Parts: sequence; C-alpha cells; structure tokens
Amino acid sequence: MQDLKIDLAARSYPIYIGDGLLAQADLIKRHTASDVYAIVSNTTVAPLYLPTLQQALAGTRAFDVVLPDGEEFKTLATVERILDSLVAKRVNRDGTVLALGGGVVGDMAGFAAACYQRGIAFVQLPTTLLAQVDSSVGGKTGVNHAAGKNLIGAFHQPVCVIADTATLRTLPERELRAGLAEVIKHGMLADADFFSWLEANVERLIARDADVLAHAIRRSCEIKASIVSADERESSVRAHLNLGHTFGHAIEAATAYAGWLHGEAVATGLQIASDMSRQLGWISVAEFERVQALLQRAGLARAAPRIGVTRALEYMRMDKKVRDDRIRLVLLKPLGKAVVAADYPPEMLRGVLTHYFGAA
Amino acid sequence: MQDLKIDLAARSYPIYIGDGLLAQADLIKRHTASDVYAIVSNTTVAPLYLPTLQQALAGTRAFDVVLPDGEEFKTLATVERILDSLVAKRVNRDGTVLALGGGVVGDMAGFAAACYQRGIAFVQLPTTLLAQVDSSVGGKTGVNHAAGKNLIGAFHQPVCVIADTATLRTLPERELRAGLAEVIKHGMLADADFFSWLEANVERLIARDADVLAHAIRRSCEIKASIVSADERESSVRAHLNLGHTFGHAIEAATAYAGWLHGEAVATGLQIASDMSRQLGWISVAEFERVQALLQRAGLARAAPRIGVTRALEYMRMDKKVRDDRIRLVLLKPLGKAVVAADYPPEMLRGVLTHYFGAA
Repeated sequence: MQDLKIDLAARSYPIYIGDGLLAQADLIKRHTASDVYAIVSNTTVAPLYLPTLQQALAGTRAFDVVLPDGEEFKTLATVERILDSLVAKRVNRDGTVLALGGGVVGDMAGFAAACYQRGIAFVQLPTTLLAQVDSSVGGKTGVNHAAGKNLIGAFHQPVCVIADTATLRTLPERELRAGLAEVIKHGMLADADFFSWLEANVERLIARDADVLAHAIRRSCEIKASIVSADERESSVRAHLNLGHTFGHAIEAATAYAGWLHGEAVATGLQIASDMSRQLGWISVAEFERVQALLQRAGLARAAPRIGVTRALEYMRMDKKVRDDRIRLVLLKPLGKAVVAADYPPEMLRGVLTHYFGAA
Repeated sequence: MQDLKIDLAARSYPIYIGDGLLAQADLIKRHTASDVYAIVSNTTVAPLYLPTLQQALAGTRAFDVVLPDGEEFKTLATVERILDSLVAKRVNRDGTVLALGGGVVGDMAGFAAACYQRGIAFVQLPTTLLAQVDSSVGGKTGVNHAAGKNLIGAFHQPVCVIADTATLRTLPERELRAGLAEVIKHGMLADADFFSWLEANVERLIARDADVLAHAIRRSCEIKASIVSADERESSVRAHLNLGHTFGHAIEAATAYAGWLHGEAVATGLQIASDMSRQLGWISVAEFERVQALLQRAGLARAAPRIGVTRALEYMRMDKKVRDDRIRLVLLKPLGKAVVAADYPPEMLRGVLTHYFGAA
C-alpha cells in the first residue's frame, strides 16, 4: 500500500493507494469520529463493490444510499435525496459520508457532506482511474445546473481517500483510457520525468498492472496535491491543472457532453494546447510529436468535432475560467512545465482552432 | 460610523455600524472585485430599503432577487431561485451577493453565495437588530429541512457587514425586543460590565436612540466575534453562544416555531439557565434577580408553554448540539461568564424544568 499525505492548512488528509483496500475498514475507522456511515454509491458500482464495503463495516451503523448512474443525475435534486437520507437516519455531526464510485458520486456525496449540518466528514472511495487521480485531490464537490456544469458546489476536503486499484479491473477500457488523459496531463504540466516514465509504461497501465497503476496514481496525486496545496481556493497556479481543459470544454459544450468522455475531450485539448505551444516556439517539434505519440498509444488521439473556429471560440469564452475577452490559455513552456498565457497573437489561436475545429 | 474588524484566519472582514450607511455604496465597493451585484431581499424589506440601495449602486450592474418573506420559505427550493438568477445573469466568480434583510434573507443569500461556483463574495446588510448582533458574525448560512431547522448549510464569511441603524426605525417593536434578547445574552455570557450598561440603557435602546443602539450592536458583535474567532468551526467555546438556546429550542420545537420569535424563546431560555445556575450556587440570588428584572424591562419575561418536563427534556435532547444522553447545558458561573456543564444533578434539571414547563 502506498500512503500519500495531502497538506492543506488545518485540513490535511492521507491518500491510501493499493490492491484490495476496500476490505480494510480500519483505514476508514481511524479517521472517523463515530461508526455511523452513509455509503453513497450508484446502481452500476453498488452491485460490484458495495457488498465488500458492507462486509468490512459489519457491526457498524452503516447504511447505503444508491443513486441512479449518470452525469444527467448530477443535480441538486439528487443531492437532496442524500440529505433526506442523512436526516431520516438522524445522522449527527459525528457521522461520515462514504463516497463509493466515480467522480459523479464523489462530487455529489462530498457536496451533501459539505452542506449537512454545515459540514460533516467524508471519505472518498474512488472506483475509476479518473476519480483516483483527479477528483480525489482538490476538495471540489458539487452538481451541475441546467445552464452549465459544476456551477453549484463547495470546497470540502475528505478526511481520507482510499484508492483501491482492484476496482479498476472492472472499469470499461474506454474509461480507463480517459482516466489516463489526466495522468498524462499531470506529466505534461509539471514533471517531464513522469512523462518519460509514462512513455515507458503506457501499455502496462492499459493492461492494468497493479504496481504500475499504483505508481501512476501516486505520482498524479502528488503533482495535483502540490499545486492544490499552493492554491487551495483556485486563485493562481491551480489554473495549470486546466491544461487542455479550455479547449476540451469547447468540445464538450459543442457536443452537449454527449459522445465524449471528459478525459477524451481533455486529451484532444492537450494535443491542441501542445500544438499552440509549439507554434509559439515554447516547446520543440520533437516534444509536440512525443505528446501526439503518447496520446496515440493511450488510445486518446481523437479528432475534434468540426464545429468551426467561431463556435469553438465562443464556447471557450463561456468557460467559467475565462474572466475577460482575452482568453487566458494554459500552455507548455517547455514540456513538463505549464504557464498561463494571454500574450499570444490572437491570429495564431484562430489558426490553431481552424486547423482542429474547421473554418467558419 | 463605528468600524469593527472580525479576525478569522485568512478571512477577516469589517463590520460597519452607523446611521444611513445603506446609502454609502463606497463601503460595498471597496470590498468587491467587480460591479456585478445580486441584491437578495424579501417582499417586506424591499419596498422599504431596496430603492436606497439601488440608488447608491446606480451605474453598476446591480440586479435584485426578491423572495417571499417568512421562515417557511427558508428552504433549498428558495436558494435554488437565487442560484437560478445568478446563472441567468451569468454572474461570474467576481460577482457579489448582497443580503438585504433579516436573518432569513442573510442565511439564504449567504448559502447561495457559498454554493455558487463553489463560493463567491457576499455582503451582509442586516435590517433587523437580531441579524445585526447575531447572524452578521459567525459565517453560518443555510436553510431548514422539513425535519429540522438549519440542517442544511455552510460556513461562509461575508466580505463585510454593513449595519445601518436607520433600518431599525421601521422594525416592529416586538422584533426589536426579540433582538435585544441576544444582546442581553452576550452580556450575560461574557461581559458583566456590558450587562450593567444594558441595565442603565435598556429603555433608550427600545426608544431606538441611534448612538445607544450603535454601541450595543458593536459590543455584541465584539463579544460574539471574540468567541467565533477562537472557535470558527464550532467545536469548543462557541457553545457558550448557545446560552439559553437549548431551553429555548424546547419551546420553539414544542410550538412548532409558531407564536414565538426566536429571541423570545431565547429570553425565556436565559431565565431558565440563570435559575439553574442559581440553584447550583454558581450565581447569586441577587444576580438571578437582575437577569429577571432586565428581561422584564426589555419586555421579554414570557412564561414557557406548559408542555411538561418530559416533553421539554425530549426536545432538548433532539437539539443537534446534544451529542449524548447527558445533556450538556450552557450555564453561568458567575453572571458575565458562561460555562458548559454536564456535572449537575439530573434531578435538579428535572426540578427546574418542572417549574417552568409543568409536571409530567
């Protein structure tokens, strides 16, 4: 088992990474004030892993709340269902919410924990690679609004995260690959050595080698944690984590989030960001080609939809991270180091977007 | 104008207290990042003070959200209305929510600000004495659940609080007196000199003398702030602020929050807490009589409903502040200093409750 500490002022917590950790209830118990556990999961994950967790928590006052599966249920109404269950079971401030599932379950369970009695403890038990490397660090919780994703939410840190790599064995391959996009992103934005390690190990990751997965998850979490620790409330360097995301957001928004997994859109966004960085001379042609090749081997070299440069720009502007007309881009300078840039020639951005999204 | 600084780690903010401050938009502008203001108010307060605020904010991108008035609308559904307005107006992270009204408006506007894009700025513009002395310090925001008050919410500190004492001139006298209950409470739990000052000035407060009100508000906020600063997340000394509240909660719960204003229930609770403290020998008979006399002069010497000791105990146990079977009481030792106590003879508590609530 790997054990990684996330350092945030007054709210530090560990991430445990290893094979079969869901069965080790002591990892949970050492961080919780009572034996009242609200296990929040969904209809896909519950049949696979809820029995393991329930057995591990036998003898405690655990109960479960099983939600429908899917981003379309990531709403305030679903969070109210969790809150209603907490109220019905008379959970007090010593109770703990356990989030068993992917990012959607974690976001909603964490938001319910943040709001119930103005904040109770919660534990993340992520069962997808994306959730293990991304949403388990950062404290972001929340739901979507009809007008946009993640518009409603809270920052609420878990008391611990338990990433059981065994749960990745049942993960659909497409989701595993989409999760790898965020892993690759972390190498690109902060650690050229880790990027090289990924080049050497990408096939083993896709083959779900437990040790290789554990290392990739650990290094990803470390990178994200070091950035989040420096900027917990997202005012400065945390923007680096959005590498690929502003371009990816245009893809997701244009397709109404249908047909593309988040990681797939991010991967295409990483390619566009790298291309822009190359044209600015901030990374070399060779580095750009390494990015392309790694995304290709990870099964993530998907072409952007031909929505046209104008619509792509509109969607990028609507992204909530954009505060003014000059779109601030997260780019590479060089590979292994992200920068936030607004000092690029606008016509260069138009050119790059035209190449990927088409003219008009 | 009085100017008081609330010190919380990384989130300090000022409270401005004075006559006519609603018209001074610069107080708001110096604390906000853009000129986008969502003014949240209700149908009672808006006709009285919204025009003043709108005029002060002329030339900015202010808009208003007017909610129905009443505790029964303090729900997640009403908060969603605020969130929908923020989304519809495309408010970004630089926008600010202005809460213009009493505690209910402040709780909901603050909670909406806490949840919108995981937290945007908000300013409290309290228009009741209770809100000026109580909810403007502490960062508690939230809504009621069908099963209990304030079960859903967040800690979210305002960027500043502007207490315009002019707004108290239109406050119904019963609400003014109810607000005084919390002021008296602050003297009782932390400052015997302030309690003496209240004895000398209670009639002037009820006559709404602006300078006397400003001093009472300032000293109340200072006392609450010193306690909240020491215990922002409500784990230890903050319990002192619940003086009178556990007894008062029994009254509110037994009457389903109808017919009693919160401050009225707290005032009767203060009398019961003082009586219990006297019986324990922690305050003198003379001190108990001073408390009784001051509450009497403030128009707050209301008899508890005759619900019987057994029901009173049940409701006190259901109060969310009670974690185990032995009810922890906030009592006085002596007048001017609160203590949390569980080391009292249970039969003494039964006796006191029987006296106030009746037998059986």
